[in-house]
Amino acid sequence: MIDPWSSAIVDYEKLIEQFGIKPFSDLLDDVENPPNLMKRGIIFGHRDYGRIVKAMREKTEFAVVTGMMPSGKMHIGHKMIVDQLIWYQKQGADIYIPIADMESYSARNIEFNESRELAITEYLTNYIALGLDFNKKNINVYLQSENKLVQNLAYMLGRKVNLNEMKAIYGFTGSTNISHLYVPLIQVADILHPQLEEFGGPKPTVVPVGPDQDPHIRLTRDIAERFKNRFKFIAPSSTYHRFITGLTGDKMSSSKPKTAIFLSDSPEIAAKKVKSAKTGGRESLEDQRHHGGIPEECVVYEMLLYHLVNSDKELKEMYHNCKEGNVMCGECKNHASEMMMKFFEQLSKRRQVAEHEARKILSNNVR
Amino acid sequence: MIDPWSSAIVDYEKLIEQFGIKPFSDLLDDVENPPNLMKRGIIFGHRDYGRIVKAMREKTEFAVVTGMMPSGKMHIGHKMIVDQLIWYQKQGADIYIPIADMESYSARNIEFNESRELAITEYLTNYIALGLDFNKKNINVYLQSENKLVQNLAYMLGRKVNLNEMKAIYGFTGSTNISHLYVPLIQVADILHPQLEEFGGPKPTVVPVGPDQDPHIRLTRDIAERFKNRFKFIAPSSTYHRFITGLTGDKMSSSKPKTAIFLSDSPEIAAKKVKSAKTGGRESLEDQRHHGGIPEECVVYEMLLYHLVNSDKELKEMYHNCKEGNVMCGECKNHASEMMMKFFEQLSKRRQVAEHEARKILSNNVR
Repeated sequence: MIDPWSSAIVDYEKLIEQFGIKPFSDLLDDVENPPNLMKRGIIFGHRDYGRIVKAMREKTEFAVVTGMMPSGKMHIGHKMIVDQLIWYQKQGADIYIPIADMESYSARNIEFNESRELAITEYLTNYIALGLDFNKKNINVYLQSENKLVQNLAYMLGRKVNLNEMKAIYGFTGSTNISHLYVPLIQVADILHPQLEEFGGPKPTVVPVGPDQDPHIRLTRDIAERFKNRFKFIAPSSTYHRFITGLTGDKMSSSKPKTAIFLSDSPEIAAKKVKSAKTGGRESLEDQRHHGGIPEECVVYEMLLYHLVNSDKELKEMYHNCKEGNVMCGECKNHASEMMMKFFEQLSKRRQVAEHEARKILSNNVR
Repeated sequence: MIDPWSSAIVDYEKLIEQFGIKPFSDLLDDVENPPNLMKRGIIFGHRDYGRIVKAMREKTEFAVVTGMMPSGKMHIGHKMIVDQLIWYQKQGADIYIPIADMESYSARNIEFNESRELAITEYLTNYIALGLDFNKKNINVYLQSENKLVQNLAYMLGRKVNLNEMKAIYGFTGSTNISHLYVPLIQVADILHPQLEEFGGPKPTVVPVGPDQDPHIRLTRDIAERFKNRFKFIAPSSTYHRFITGLTGDKMSSSKPKTAIFLSDSPEIAAKKVKSAKTGGRESLEDQRHHGGIPEECVVYEMLLYHLVNSDKELKEMYHNCKEGNVMCGECKNHASEMMMKFFEQLSKRRQVAEHEARKILSNNVR
């Protein structure tokens, strides 16, 4: 079967089978005006997303929680999270954005004040430039180190989680440092704290993550259950998205600059990087004209799919032109590169004014 | 050798030999106007107390940190800590009193708001009634759960402590819960935070503890060393005091009411409890007239030594009258019981007005 939305790079089917994640396609039809990320199967799985669909349909309160860990530069793969937030904002969600400075400290040895600065100049600036509206009500941004409520909740929850369990989930050993061992509880509290009385009590909550984060989601859901009597927590829902592939064909990663298009790249650099990306082309032009290209293995096609082509019709055409050998990689790359250039021209312009606003957000949020 | 200050109940000499605690007697002569607890060997050991002596002599800044864990009722043994604080307050120390509500939660399942109330109605009320002056400058009382600075410092310090180390010190196992495992770091931060810039930077700090707390002091000193470059910490000093013996001859403990005289007891009850206490008397009066009593094994004598008799001369007389068989247990108990009654009459009266003041202390200290 030909599927313009599929990817050959990671076996997402297997993740679904092994860990009890449900295919997103099962409830896609229930979502009103789903975003491209859902329609195109980039968001491929979920847990208990039904209660989010219901909340959206019935216009009742629900929350979205998605943290940012300030530890380097944002790349174009990170745009996926912001796109989801923008969509959820339109659906009336309460949005919670923890800035994981405590995690940055234990995982990367980045000091709190450095994290704060990085969150402003890099992360929040990009979130604003990408179109998330921080002037709307019900959008909560905070530094973990500044949030007493979250810290105290983490500590309270820790009473019903033992060392064996943490070792099994995170692979901790005797040489693991105590901050590193403790910080997952902060993240659990990030996810559950919108359900505290202070924030209006229990409500459906969704956490959009990559599948590598699922063990953490499972722990959070287990802990929610253990404290059900006390806090009346509703087990948080989650969605799982595919990773964006790096320019080299490996995972895109900020720590490997050759794999990534950074949101702070100039339009020229971004465009140039598209041209350098690994494609699903054949060994020779002749071969490709005969057999067609392999968009499922093409980084450029993924960029079109995830970010650059809004119209499904247009994308399908491009997919078939590739598959049927009508359009070769050179032409396609030129086209994609132009689109990327335009996208980055707009982004760069917006970034210039966004930083000032980003700084205000955190100074308003000191607790 | 006859020593009116000695105790046969715990082998404190052994503690000194095994763990590198230094005998307090070595520097007693350097302390100006030492309190009875020091003169009488109840404070029997120390680590690095020399730098506290120096700070007191040179009138430079130093701090005392001693927490309270709100988990029940205060007994007369706890008075020892308050007596030390009163003395240190006179010596010009900065006083820090963390209320260990986080510890109470993980160790005793006491909620934060319950801890707060217990700290007010029981602990702070007694501290005030016993004579500690909370209206002076440089006395800092706080709830651990309310102190962001202490919580963040704990987390920062945890980066250089690993799981093996915590297991070795505290005997943690796989079934230990994560809050319980984490809370020692909060206590380490309680001790070290007076040395942060926010509180005037590095300074000698003393922590008066029972010898059972020494592993914790050693960990704190080790961690201070590991963060020396960053915070310029001076390793905290400590003093070690003997425990007060319970009425039954075992350790006095709030959780075993038969062993304890509670500070909230009425004067009549307190006086009666003295009369019921185990003494160092012989099997028969004749025997005792002949051989004398054994004050080293006498709970009543310990009360005189620790709390009831201020004059050394008077105490020595009582000691010798016992040793020489001049005064029998009945007479001695009557005398001690009267003194206890007087002490409790005054304390009860003061407690009545103290609670209102205690409540104000914590409401002023919300951060």
